[in-house]
Amino acid sequence: MRAAPRGHRERIVYETAQQLRRAGVTATGLRHVVALADAPRGSLQHYFPGGKDQLVAEALQWSGTWAADRVRHHLEGMWQPRPSRLFAAMVDDWSADLRTRDFERGCPVAGAVVDCADTNEAVREAAADALDTWREPITEALVGMGRTRRRAETLSTLMLCGLEGALVLARAERDTAPLRLVARELAPVLDA
Amino acid sequence: MRAAPRGHRERIVYETAQQLRRAGVTATGLRHVVALADAPRGSLQHYFPGGKDQLVAEALQWSGTWAADRVRHHLEGMWQPRPSRLFAAMVDDWSADLRTRDFERGCPVAGAVVDCADTNEAVREAAADALDTWREPITEALVGMGRTRRRAETLSTLMLCGLEGALVLARAERDTAPLRLVARELAPVLDA
Repeated sequence: MRAAPRGHRERIVYETAQQLRRAGVTATGLRHVVALADAPRGSLQHYFPGGKDQLVAEALQWSGTWAADRVRHHLEGMWQPRPSRLFAAMVDDWSADLRTRDFERGCPVAGAVVDCADTNEAVREAAADALDTWREPITEALVGMGRTRRRAETLSTLMLCGLEGALVLARAERDTAPLRLVARELAPVLDA
Repeated sequence: MRAAPRGHRERIVYETAQQLRRAGVTATGLRHVVALADAPRGSLQHYFPGGKDQLVAEALQWSGTWAADRVRHHLEGMWQPRPSRLFAAMVDDWSADLRTRDFERGCPVAGAVVDCADTNEAVREAAADALDTWREPITEALVGMGRTRRRAETLSTLMLCGLEGALVLARAERDTAPLRLVARELAPVLDA
């Protein structure tokens, strides 16, 4: 997640997403996020009258849009697009991020779901929406590669499952091997 | 996770694992866990002088052992064992738990990794150890089904990635469909 946000509001949302990636929802402190965003203290109440729930929901929304943009970026640069190539590009992107940041940050959606799926319905819904936003350009791309819509939806969900799970294992083991493994092992299913 | 722990110590560890499954590490309160375990207040310092880190690490260890025991249980009752059948049994087990508990609880290892992989090395190591403990009987079973050890290790890791990721999506969407999907889509790779 290498976007360069501009105003205070955008920076606060961005830094919240980064903290969700690092330590989940509960450990993400509002004052810390405002400090990281180099924003004035009052900006939190000004921009986010709904408090932490609103901020986390917006951070998840931002994350879903960011991930979807990355998918479109991968597709643009892709020579002879194939489902396995798209998945490999997504996996490589995450692997590079894990290595660059010393495994500091995972997926913000996983951070929200694990902490809040049972305790905060607004955050859970925002996480589900972010997954939908992310999955949509993948599904569309697979339809463009000749899959039926139904099959494309199955395969895009399979990609997200493989990626989310591999991120959990990779961060536990401080090793990107699980990411390479899912890219390699899912390839025949994706391209069948 | 339907074990029935006996003494105060075991009950505290068990209830900690359940809270990790529900809301991650940060939101798991020590007093709450002791109350859930119906244990005296002093028992925490008595049994866990290392504090929350020790308790969370032991809860992860317990969880890894529990998950490994479930794998062995699935194998015992399995007619004509095949990798895809073992994976389907694991997935069905988790699906039943999600439905029974209204999607309240996911995997405690994911709860620990997402919250603590970057902030608490002891917890991260305990999470990695729990994954190893869980993976071991799967790998052994796959070797027993004729896979080379190297291939068995790959496939057991693939199973855990698919399962962990599907749990994140299932809890986000309050739907066990992602679990059924990974069981079905990974089957040809697992049985190849």
